[in-house]
Amino acid sequence: MTSLKDISKTLKSHNDFCIFAHKYPDGDAVGSSHALCRALQSMGKRAKILMEDEIPQKYKFLEEYIKHEEFQSEFLVTVDIADVKQLGESLDKYSDKIDLCIDHHVTNKKYAADTFLDASAASASEIIYDLINEMGVNIDKEMAECLYIGVSTDTGCFKYSNVTSRTHRVAAELIEKNINLKEINRLIFDTKPKKFIKLEMLIYNSLEYFFDGKCAIIFVTPDMLKSCGVKENEFEGIASIPRSIEGVEIGITIRQKGEGAYKISVRTSEKVSASKICKQFGGGGHINAAGFTFEGKLDNSRTKILDYIEKKIYL
Amino acid sequence: MTSLKDISKTLKSHNDFCIFAHKYPDGDAVGSSHALCRALQSMGKRAKILMEDEIPQKYKFLEEYIKHEEFQSEFLVTVDIADVKQLGESLDKYSDKIDLCIDHHVTNKKYAADTFLDASAASASEIIYDLINEMGVNIDKEMAECLYIGVSTDTGCFKYSNVTSRTHRVAAELIEKNINLKEINRLIFDTKPKKFIKLEMLIYNSLEYFFDGKCAIIFVTPDMLKSCGVKENEFEGIASIPRSIEGVEIGITIRQKGEGAYKISVRTSEKVSASKICKQFGGGGHINAAGFTFEGKLDNSRTKILDYIEKKIYL
Repeated sequence: MTSLKDISKTLKSHNDFCIFAHKYPDGDAVGSSHALCRALQSMGKRAKILMEDEIPQKYKFLEEYIKHEEFQSEFLVTVDIADVKQLGESLDKYSDKIDLCIDHHVTNKKYAADTFLDASAASASEIIYDLINEMGVNIDKEMAECLYIGVSTDTGCFKYSNVTSRTHRVAAELIEKNINLKEINRLIFDTKPKKFIKLEMLIYNSLEYFFDGKCAIIFVTPDMLKSCGVKENEFEGIASIPRSIEGVEIGITIRQKGEGAYKISVRTSEKVSASKICKQFGGGGHINAAGFTFEGKLDNSRTKILDYIEKKIYL
Repeated sequence: MTSLKDISKTLKSHNDFCIFAHKYPDGDAVGSSHALCRALQSMGKRAKILMEDEIPQKYKFLEEYIKHEEFQSEFLVTVDIADVKQLGESLDKYSDKIDLCIDHHVTNKKYAADTFLDASAASASEIIYDLINEMGVNIDKEMAECLYIGVSTDTGCFKYSNVTSRTHRVAAELIEKNINLKEINRLIFDTKPKKFIKLEMLIYNSLEYFFDGKCAIIFVTPDMLKSCGVKENEFEGIASIPRSIEGVEIGITIRQKGEGAYKISVRTSEKVSASKICKQFGGGGHINAAGFTFEGKLDNSRTKILDYIEKKIYL
């Protein structure tokens, strides 16, 4: 499907929707799914949201913005999901039944019957904003809060390289819906739990530099999280820590997920492609923000990544 | 002077300008002064900028965006200066000669012959953006970069409580001037010098909580800065550290400036007025971001502030 007009028509022609967001939902996953759900409900349709993991605490208030009802859905939509594997194990049974995928990841795997991909959008919420307007639905304060959270979190509060003038214009229009802007910004971007400060200090102590400081690696183990009282996936910004250090072109975050299981996030400066590195190890993502999972010995994994980086990038 | 139209007329009727920015210049001081200077120069006028301190390294490239010439100025303009004392010692001789002040601080002391104050603007650059348009000058890429730096830094990259839809619209329009957005955002908001990481760890170690965690104080001494290789005023974000900790309503940063001389920055949540606290001690600023200087014994100063806060706010 190539246009928002087509999608709008398709959505209007159906009545009972299930919207899927990815596992470990972030602000954009939660925001875009809830905005679309509320928009469809406001059109008199039935819509619900399914995602493998719980919504992070700071976004939980968005759950109150939709009606929660049980029904048999007939049209399955994913938002912000590049790869159907990101549905997670418990939702895997839907993976070959997705009718429509709305996404902004250039690496989208086209797993759905129809896909609307706009890789120029900084967030899925930017697309959903246009879609709701296209459907002729008035964006109310609640939808605007959902969308603002998506737009702002997926751009690191308007600072990442994906930001365009469109991102700011959408933000301006959402702010004019009288959203609780100060409260939301404070909650999401200007509030650091004491436990995160503790964790950050541990993380900085784990920091290692390679290739004359052009590559930095941090380690996060379940023990570190536990000792600070931080839950898995509660600290979204973790992966951006090493890349944001001056001079670092490749920032790697290795998170131990279990015995011999690791999630590796790669963030790069414009000079280096993170998605290329991650593809090499069976993962993917955006050009400067990608990831993959690894099972085995941590030392092997680390050595393999560093070898690859040395050979392909710094030799 | 009440309207931008009046200011535009006045500026058009003069030829040789001196623009003043405040001491310890931040992104908005540098950005707004350089944008205005370039705009006036593009109109065939002579304009120069004076400020007590050197421009921070990350904004230095803006100096190349203006012509540097020596001449006798006849019209003196301050931008982003609420109190003429902020000119600094070396420029104090101009303090009673300012023809026009363009500012966005609600605490502006009306020291100039004429003042254009728009306290709804998140930054002086937001006002200068409107003014340049009002003067009929085409905002080029260079002016846009100056203004974007002002708009973005004074709002903590669009996250502080001063942000409005206007802020985002101005940002969108500046981005459309083809500014080096990714480069600027990375440079200013997404690059943490290694020395700042070291300093942050020292600062977190100095952190003290009061009134059930509602007030947090950090200390920064010249020795701490020296041991990390950080220069005075190089680390703009310092003052926002304590307030951004979860649960903190009043964040106080005490920076020792010399023997018995302290600069105290107060950042507050919406519930508490920082400028009220600082006025008490002879300072001022914005409602949630203010400061004052103190000479004497640190313990006395600390005790006085905490006493005041206890009596006036938490009793």
